[in-house]
Amino acid sequence: MTDVWRFAQFTTFCGVPSVDLSEVGGVDVVIIGAPIDWGASYRAGARFGPKAIREADYLDPNTRRPHLPTGIDPFEVMSVVDAGDVKVAPGYLEEGLDSIADAVAAIAATGAIPIVLGGDHSVTYANGTGLARVLGPDTFGLVHFDAHADTGETAAFGALHGHGTPMRRLVESGAVPGHRFVQIGLRGYWPEPHVVEWMHGNSMKTFMMNEIVERGLNAVVDDAVAACTEVDAKGVFISVDVDVVDPGMAPGTGTPEPGGLLSRELLDTVRRLARELPVVGADVVEVAPPYDGPGQVTAFLANRVVLEILNGMAERRSGV
Amino acid sequence: MTDVWRFAQFTTFCGVPSVDLSEVGGVDVVIIGAPIDWGASYRAGARFGPKAIREADYLDPNTRRPHLPTGIDPFEVMSVVDAGDVKVAPGYLEEGLDSIADAVAAIAATGAIPIVLGGDHSVTYANGTGLARVLGPDTFGLVHFDAHADTGETAAFGALHGHGTPMRRLVESGAVPGHRFVQIGLRGYWPEPHVVEWMHGNSMKTFMMNEIVERGLNAVVDDAVAACTEVDAKGVFISVDVDVVDPGMAPGTGTPEPGGLLSRELLDTVRRLARELPVVGADVVEVAPPYDGPGQVTAFLANRVVLEILNGMAERRSGV
Amino acid sequence: MTDVWRFAQFTTFCGVPSVDLSEVGGVDVVIIGAPIDWGASYRAGARFGPKAIREADYLDPNTRRPHLPTGIDPFEVMSVVDAGDVKVAPGYLEEGLDSIADAVAAIAATGAIPIVLGGDHSVTYANGTGLARVLGPDTFGLVHFDAHADTGETAAFGALHGHGTPMRRLVESGAVPGHRFVQIGLRGYWPEPHVVEWMHGNSMKTFMMNEIVERGLNAVVDDAVAACTEVDAKGVFISVDVDVVDPGMAPGTGTPEPGGLLSRELLDTVRRLARELPVVGADVVEVAPPYDGPGQVTAFLANRVVLEILNGMAERRSGV
Amino acid sequence: MTDVWRFAQFTTFCGVPSVDLSEVGGVDVVIIGAPIDWGASYRAGARFGPKAIREADYLDPNTRRPHLPTGIDPFEVMSVVDAGDVKVAPGYLEEGLDSIADAVAAIAATGAIPIVLGGDHSVTYANGTGLARVLGPDTFGLVHFDAHADTGETAAFGALHGHGTPMRRLVESGAVPGHRFVQIGLRGYWPEPHVVEWMHGNSMKTFMMNEIVERGLNAVVDDAVAACTEVDAKGVFISVDVDVVDPGMAPGTGTPEPGGLLSRELLDTVRRLARELPVVGADVVEVAPPYDGPGQVTAFLANRVVLEILNGMAERRSGV
Amino acid sequence: MTDVWRFAQFTTFCGVPSVDLSEVGGVDVVIIGAPIDWGASYRAGARFGPKAIREADYLDPNTRRPHLPTGIDPFEVMSVVDAGDVKVAPGYLEEGLDSIADAVAAIAATGAIPIVLGGDHSVTYANGTGLARVLGPDTFGLVHFDAHADTGETAAFGALHGHGTPMRRLVESGAVPGHRFVQIGLRGYWPEPHVVEWMHGNSMKTFMMNEIVERGLNAVVDDAVAACTEVDAKGVFISVDVDVVDPGMAPGTGTPEPGGLLSRELLDTVRRLARELPVVGADVVEVAPPYDGPGQVTAFLANRVVLEILNGMAERRSGV
Amino acid sequence: MTDVWRFAQFTTFCGVPSVDLSEVGGVDVVIIGAPIDWGASYRAGARFGPKAIREADYLDPNTRRPHLPTGIDPFEVMSVVDAGDVKVAPGYLEEGLDSIADAVAAIAATGAIPIVLGGDHSVTYANGTGLARVLGPDTFGLVHFDAHADTGETAAFGALHGHGTPMRRLVESGAVPGHRFVQIGLRGYWPEPHVVEWMHGNSMKTFMMNEIVERGLNAVVDDAVAACTEVDAKGVFISVDVDVVDPGMAPGTGTPEPGGLLSRELLDTVRRLARELPVVGADVVEVAPPYDGPGQVTAFLANRVVLEILNGMAERRSGV
Repeated sequence: MTDVWRFAQFTTFCGVPSVDLSEVGGVDVVIIGAPIDWGASYRAGARFGPKAIREADYLDPNTRRPHLPTGIDPFEVMSVVDAGDVKVAPGYLEEGLDSIADAVAAIAATGAIPIVLGGDHSVTYANGTGLARVLGPDTFGLVHFDAHADTGETAAFGALHGHGTPMRRLVESGAVPGHRFVQIGLRGYWPEPHVVEWMHGNSMKTFMMNEIVERGLNAVVDDAVAACTEVDAKGVFISVDVDVVDPGMAPGTGTPEPGGLLSRELLDTVRRLARELPVVGADVVEVAPPYDGPGQVTAFLANRVVLEILNGMAERRSGV
Repeated sequence: MTDVWRFAQFTTFCGVPSVDLSEVGGVDVVIIGAPIDWGASYRAGARFGPKAIREADYLDPNTRRPHLPTGIDPFEVMSVVDAGDVKVAPGYLEEGLDSIADAVAAIAATGAIPIVLGGDHSVTYANGTGLARVLGPDTFGLVHFDAHADTGETAAFGALHGHGTPMRRLVESGAVPGHRFVQIGLRGYWPEPHVVEWMHGNSMKTFMMNEIVERGLNAVVDDAVAACTEVDAKGVFISVDVDVVDPGMAPGTGTPEPGGLLSRELLDTVRRLARELPVVGADVVEVAPPYDGPGQVTAFLANRVVLEILNGMAERRSGV
Repeated sequence: MTDVWRFAQFTTFCGVPSVDLSEVGGVDVVIIGAPIDWGASYRAGARFGPKAIREADYLDPNTRRPHLPTGIDPFEVMSVVDAGDVKVAPGYLEEGLDSIADAVAAIAATGAIPIVLGGDHSVTYANGTGLARVLGPDTFGLVHFDAHADTGETAAFGALHGHGTPMRRLVESGAVPGHRFVQIGLRGYWPEPHVVEWMHGNSMKTFMMNEIVERGLNAVVDDAVAACTEVDAKGVFISVDVDVVDPGMAPGTGTPEPGGLLSRELLDTVRRLARELPVVGADVVEVAPPYDGPGQVTAFLANRVVLEILNGMAERRSGV
Repeated sequence: MTDVWRFAQFTTFCGVPSVDLSEVGGVDVVIIGAPIDWGASYRAGARFGPKAIREADYLDPNTRRPHLPTGIDPFEVMSVVDAGDVKVAPGYLEEGLDSIADAVAAIAATGAIPIVLGGDHSVTYANGTGLARVLGPDTFGLVHFDAHADTGETAAFGALHGHGTPMRRLVESGAVPGHRFVQIGLRGYWPEPHVVEWMHGNSMKTFMMNEIVERGLNAVVDDAVAACTEVDAKGVFISVDVDVVDPGMAPGTGTPEPGGLLSRELLDTVRRLARELPVVGADVVEVAPPYDGPGQVTAFLANRVVLEILNGMAERRSGV
Repeated sequence: MTDVWRFAQFTTFCGVPSVDLSEVGGVDVVIIGAPIDWGASYRAGARFGPKAIREADYLDPNTRRPHLPTGIDPFEVMSVVDAGDVKVAPGYLEEGLDSIADAVAAIAATGAIPIVLGGDHSVTYANGTGLARVLGPDTFGLVHFDAHADTGETAAFGALHGHGTPMRRLVESGAVPGHRFVQIGLRGYWPEPHVVEWMHGNSMKTFMMNEIVERGLNAVVDDAVAACTEVDAKGVFISVDVDVVDPGMAPGTGTPEPGGLLSRELLDTVRRLARELPVVGADVVEVAPPYDGPGQVTAFLANRVVLEILNGMAERRSGV
Repeated sequence: MTDVWRFAQFTTFCGVPSVDLSEVGGVDVVIIGAPIDWGASYRAGARFGPKAIREADYLDPNTRRPHLPTGIDPFEVMSVVDAGDVKVAPGYLEEGLDSIADAVAAIAATGAIPIVLGGDHSVTYANGTGLARVLGPDTFGLVHFDAHADTGETAAFGALHGHGTPMRRLVESGAVPGHRFVQIGLRGYWPEPHVVEWMHGNSMKTFMMNEIVERGLNAVVDDAVAACTEVDAKGVFISVDVDVVDPGMAPGTGTPEPGGLLSRELLDTVRRLARELPVVGADVVEVAPPYDGPGQVTAFLANRVVLEILNGMAERRSGV
């Protein structure tokens, strides 16, 4: 097979080996795409998120990504493969989420850590469900970066699933109970107070932007790490909705809410979390390329979120 | 209520009265939006089609649109209202199509002619189904402008519905049998020959672009009109997929296929059809604003397709 | 009338009731559009600002916007209506400003607080003039967020009005004397030193970006609040030129000047001001949608500036 | 002075000499910009039309533009200079039109032919007025390419001037009476029938798109040439609103009306007119760069319209 | 290896097998990318042409592309593979052209037909040179679709190579003498008359747009086919500069020249040529994605140019 | 000659006098463009950087730019001219770099300070080389703002030059030895550790983003200033790759690396450096307009980087 390069198509994230999901095994991390955007309540486009995230790269797809400050290359420390995208039929959301949950469970069953490229945030219900099927319910924390709580009782017009409900569904099913949740970056005018009360009633830990501005990000992340460490857990799943970053810096997303984190704040924080906590899975969601402008800077940001998570994991394994 | 104007929001098509669907009655034409894009197999965005089509207008929303060559104003000749959009939950395609079919049937039941603003082409299954519920199956023709036949056996991964299957589903259900179909503008590399055979086996009449180029558009439309007249019919439903026009002139669509009609060819043809044949309904679909560029010219084209259909209908009623 | 929703047209800000200006009365706040961009000295486009600001919303237009940190919903605490846009003829700036001043005065005369969606910054002359006509000259402060002082002696080629002169005109007319002004965020290379001297000579209080960077935003806003409180005033008018935010985060504006505030700094500051000071009116100006890119993030920011002002006002009234 | 080149700024059209308006004299053609867009009733942006038209050029600004089929270079046959832009204050439309009329008259007074780069179409009132001041009223024909008749009784809200009224104003003032008008390309739903009657009553000759489609462009242009030749005239002024071309091919304009000419039809027709009729002036208007997309193809088209007019004039002078 | 699909990356054109250039053999057609844009005299971006052309496809990369009118699938009739991109160092044009010529020669040496995806038009010098190295100089015709003659004596500042000189270099080297050239679609204001004379002196056959408009495209293509058949030749190389199509329909190119072909005229013509003449190679060049707008319609057009050439070849082999 | 203004073409930076390079003399600063982008390893477009930077200005080109906080106008304090662009042939990188080095040396030889508008970063090799030819090798420091170290052993496929190697080439040639380098803003996953070791081995001083975040920008710049002052130097060359700023705020660049500086951090820092250190030259590179979106905010930022450098220089000369 001919090799690809930076002017051409990226078939896999950073050029890691491409594997069929059925042949995954003996690797540390499996990247997989979940190209659903029919769970989005407003702008669509995230179906092209996995493609855009893989392509947002100006280096050759040669699996060499040494982190400049440390020199650690996650692809040297860990074996990482890319299983392509889960096949999902547009308009059939529940069926698609089932397929994604199956794929995540299949990955986790091999002992590998799944990293899912979304897709809208509805896929996190599938990710958490699939992972809990293997690791057991109520066994891992979920650190959730987002402008939105995603704890709606229902999606549009009473539908069960959508990108505004995945966290509710995970709490309800018991896959990830409320006390396992740490949410970072929330802001805006949604959801309604009775939903916020439900969140508190379920012991979800929420750090809104106003608290981050007042106390500083480092202090908040200290608390987040502590919260994840306090409860006995096999590890944490990191779910990054790219809209946690201010839309002024990350315009390519479906439901932009002004007033968010800086890009570098997000990147530093996910690396820190992955270094300080055992990661059992991750996803990066809500990259909507049609709204990203010609520079596609949001896709670049999401690509680096994955790399910084991998880098934090590699630092942890390297004992740095 | 304050009136809106051209710099502001268009709440209804050309400023026609806004009515609730449950209160429709005693009017000639009802415009309604079907903002589904989760039936699209490739690029999404058509959920914002109804909004974009209504807004693609630089005149005031004052319901005065006299056709320049004739001076006939369709809004003087016919009573037209706008019933807003059907409410549809993203990711629940079949439920959404049901709601649209109900809405179309409700409109037709009052004796009004429905004009549906899509949305992706999956909604035409709903439109045809709802209309047949009132007019009876096998009672009206369907003139279908499109680059694609939309007669796929299944949508992606075996799904029943999607924007590549509505015509198949309508033929299969008997709402609009194959002999009632006239397709104009087809081209490209899909569907497979056995599907084309199925189309022929069901007596669908298909005018591909190569025939249009060779024989001229007028000759082909003569045949189309004759075909619609030959069969005993209550009238025709005109379904316009905006991708029948060359994507070089109509870029804002989901599955662009180069080599299509000119904009003016489409506009002249739909007006002619609506003047020469009794229209029982119409839709304009597959306008995807995120891919339309800053000029939003595809939305403008779709707006004028509706106006030219209305104009042809008004000419017919005026006996011009 | 059919209700509108998020995929469709927003007729009013957040779906608040639409009223005709002549029927305003008995409400707390009236939102109104001032779609002028022919006062802009460089890029036009702000005529579509009111439309874009109203539409920059992914929630349904259901007038429910509880602030996430407090749970306070400004639309529960206050009655807010939207009077649509002032009708203005392109190219007739002075006539248009007169119409806007009349509209603002009409609103204020009912006891309601006007919030004006621009439009270029020339409209603030009209806003201040109309308000002073009711409240009296020299009776309220004007907190002015902007990259530019807008105190030019004349606009282009000696013209009296334009988006670079409104503050000068307000000082000169006495509607808002210099000692009532607090300006935040100024930077760049304009106006000339003799104009800056004139500003100082008129006791305008100016906090430039270099001072904000050196002392911190909180300290500067402390001073701003103190300045507004010191002088005996009926309250403050908050005028937000969206270009006070760095163009890297708010590109959709006419005269971008790099080096500005972060989005979240602006949002937090306007909410704080509206909580700590009695607001008598506000405007948000210089959103130019054609330069905003497909994500329209500047319009989203401006929408949230209005919401944060409303929220601060609601917090003040709620005694939080 | 350093020479400029294709990667850099074009100071003048094709690099022709730059002259101050006060020093024009002894040349055949003077190009001048009229950067007004505050006469536009819908989208602004045409203030940057002159700049965009001058820059839409991939050849060096070396004043060598031999027409490929003939080898004739208009800059060899005629002396052409560029007088820059008329200085106009945004928001002061009537004053600006006066300045433009003065500039056009100043050019014509030297015996040179003015070619004006708009700007919105309101400037044609100024162009015709200025020219008639020198050549005399009712002395030249006006061939008007446009989707719109531009014969509105008033502009928005009763204003005298705007881009929908220049032809009315010219007829009314007598500068260019109705019988001197030939309009090509009209279509759509404006103006109202009583205005069309007024046009007929004033003997304006109008070739709408439906007639062009039916009879063919060549036949229509034959009639147009005949109409201009019949009346005793010093020559023709060619006014090209770029929206005469279909917006699918020329999206960068303010009031796009689908169903227009092809680009090559416009280019061939203006060259033919300039070859067959004595040109006394010309303008190219309504190029709105913010709506033109990254390729800026509408500006390129407008640039070539000027070049084809120059070329036709050169062919006429060369006796080809 | 995991299969790719339409939402994801296209590694090869239509999903044909990927082969390393060194392993090509026993196939009918080899597609290869030539991602050079540093030969472009104006706008760059064509380095991403090969990637964009491969991706401009909404069908699955399953190598099934039956032509709708005929049912013939070129991938059933011929074996086609994709050898990826030639590796070229930015800024080293002559070295890059050498590498491309080597690649084309290597393909031709196996008996396969090379189809090269550009890249700017400088690569056609490499393509012709490489092919002549195998087939022999003066043995095949070159049908050249373009707005430009590309016969400049030198590129910018006297450089030997660039996208304005490849045809001159091919004539000079004897690889493709002038009498083997048929050029279609030329227009505009370049090159200078003495270059046109050189072209005539070398017996190049040139059909400019004005001739195409006057005589009709079919008549001109009749002549082109005849010209290619008259001379004793092993076949023709088809070189398609996408700027032969009007920039209004194909905006994503580097040096747009208004007044060109319609998309469907180009598609029909290349299929006809490939059906009526033996094709020995082809290229499609000058697709510049950054200037193509969000719809990427120019890349779609170029993709279909390749498919129509393949289809014409398949029809010829099928004896249709 | 006619004067230009803000709606029209900017021929020179801020309207400073245009001079031919051969006539430079007796001035303090010479601005010159280096429109090369064929050294870029990924996205091209920077060839239009000089044009875009000159045009990113909403004030008239009247050479009056008083800094708002200080009132100092650099054009009053220093004589500044603009020598246009160096003429460079696309695809001939090494020849182009030679021409740029010659131009920079010619400027420096007159005693003037060159400020070069790129172009991709490969031009800094030329800038440093040309300057060292006049000032002598190892005589000035180079403060290098960038996301990337630009110390690659070779560019793509072993090429000597490209935008990833200029600093290596300068160190190797001795023009600017490693101990003269201060790099600010580096981050990401390139270059490889052995290259970082080479950098350390050559005593290059590197401040990565993680250090800036931890210690604060002011502390790092203190060190940078100290580093430049410690070594005996004639002054510093400031090289600003605009990608040092986060791509979320500066999207118009070729190789975006998330996690960078804020715009205002860059502007404040370059002004501080130019005030505290003697500047011998500067460049601003990697502005790629096609990726900058309609607001062109990255070009505006680069324009202000030049102005802030000039302002710092003016403050230094004014003894502020």
